[in-house]
Amino acid sequence: MPELRAIPIEGIGEVRKGDNLPALILEALRNEKATLVQGDILVITHKVVSKFEGQVVPLASVKPSRKAVAWAHKYKLDPRLTHIAWSQGQIVRQRHGVTITETAHGFVCANSGVDASNVDGGHSVVLLPRDPDRSAQLISRALQKEIGFAVPVIITDSFGRAWREGLTEVAIGVAGMRPFRDSRGERDPYGYKLKVTLEAIADELAGMAGLACGKLTRIPACIIRGYPFQPGRGRARDLIRARERDLFR
Amino acid sequence: MPELRAIPIEGIGEVRKGDNLPALILEALRNEKATLVQGDILVITHKVVSKFEGQVVPLASVKPSRKAVAWAHKYKLDPRLTHIAWSQGQIVRQRHGVTITETAHGFVCANSGVDASNVDGGHSVVLLPRDPDRSAQLISRALQKEIGFAVPVIITDSFGRAWREGLTEVAIGVAGMRPFRDSRGERDPYGYKLKVTLEAIADELAGMAGLACGKLTRIPACIIRGYPFQPGRGRARDLIRARERDLFR
Repeated sequence: MPELRAIPIEGIGEVRKGDNLPALILEALRNEKATLVQGDILVITHKVVSKFEGQVVPLASVKPSRKAVAWAHKYKLDPRLTHIAWSQGQIVRQRHGVTITETAHGFVCANSGVDASNVDGGHSVVLLPRDPDRSAQLISRALQKEIGFAVPVIITDSFGRAWREGLTEVAIGVAGMRPFRDSRGERDPYGYKLKVTLEAIADELAGMAGLACGKLTRIPACIIRGYPFQPGRGRARDLIRARERDLFR
Repeated sequence: MPELRAIPIEGIGEVRKGDNLPALILEALRNEKATLVQGDILVITHKVVSKFEGQVVPLASVKPSRKAVAWAHKYKLDPRLTHIAWSQGQIVRQRHGVTITETAHGFVCANSGVDASNVDGGHSVVLLPRDPDRSAQLISRALQKEIGFAVPVIITDSFGRAWREGLTEVAIGVAGMRPFRDSRGERDPYGYKLKVTLEAIADELAGMAGLACGKLTRIPACIIRGYPFQPGRGRARDLIRARERDLFR
């Protein structure tokens, strides 16, 4: 088994609406005398993707509903953020000041993924990209045009989980690779045929990148090197369990 | 930011009840001319831990209940495995042939973590370690005695999730490090004070190790190098959300 590496990409700098994110990434790599090689996976936090797509809402522009004001007051939240969060998804559970929603994409997460951290000091919030699978595809294609080979792209966000404390990074956009490793039907070294082993590797790769990038740095992307991914169409949307198969919605 | 690496430990070989797992790991490292260094984290799949602790049940020894037989028949499962899975936890949800339980440890997972893969070709199943935090502690202490410095240990299993397809490796036992990175109250590079950023890094480290080890290899452990963990008591038990705080139980 080869070593697996996560290499943070430093120096991408601030990303604004309309910026050429793939070009910024390649430039940052050149400045660090680093380069993408065949077999690499590029993992990007959604925040810079949302920024260059203009998915940023200044809180001063928001007039919260009465209901949002009442809820936010009760739990010492910003009613404008609460208002936007509620507008971006359907409420799945709401208790203890926590709102779990299902977004238009189908993601189940707190506050529809709306978040004020790593934006501009609390004046604005960032929404999820409108179609993160498509964002990943566009970035992957733009990179391929420049470097001459395909690099899969994973876009991530930090989600909470049922039953377990703490956030983990998960894949909300995928392009150029299968998000799962499917071992069903294969035999383990003891000859036993695996029945249920479908691994959500795109989520594990997202988590690995989260460890390498950190939350208090300005490092929004990293390279994963040494993971034998399966090339393919791949979509993060396939990671979402269909409502009718879900025992917890 | 430094690079983050996962280094699979090859050659540990078959582990049996009463084996000295820490010694087997150190021997495998010596044979590969590799070594643990300060700052490393050791991640081990629970299966070898359960094996050396004797948490293995031959299916031939199990007489399934009528109810288990009926359920297993309906969904083409092995009634003996079903019987053991039910005996190891309290049922949280049961539908489509899937049984989600809460184990005595408090883990919410399918079949109480009872599994026939990577055991002996389908003749036996492995249960979770009785007290995986304690197992991690014992392994960490035994290693420290040999190598002279402390190495945190994470014991993992593959769990399913609500809302998302596929399994990911999570931490079921932790020793020698904090399982969370708590950034609450710290400021991001834009000066915004983080409110909810509690990252379940032990789970992300488990996932990273899962990617490096694979499911169809005989590689049950890997070294994570380059992650700036916080030393401390740490328990995987703290990753379990208390029932009264959980919106999905």
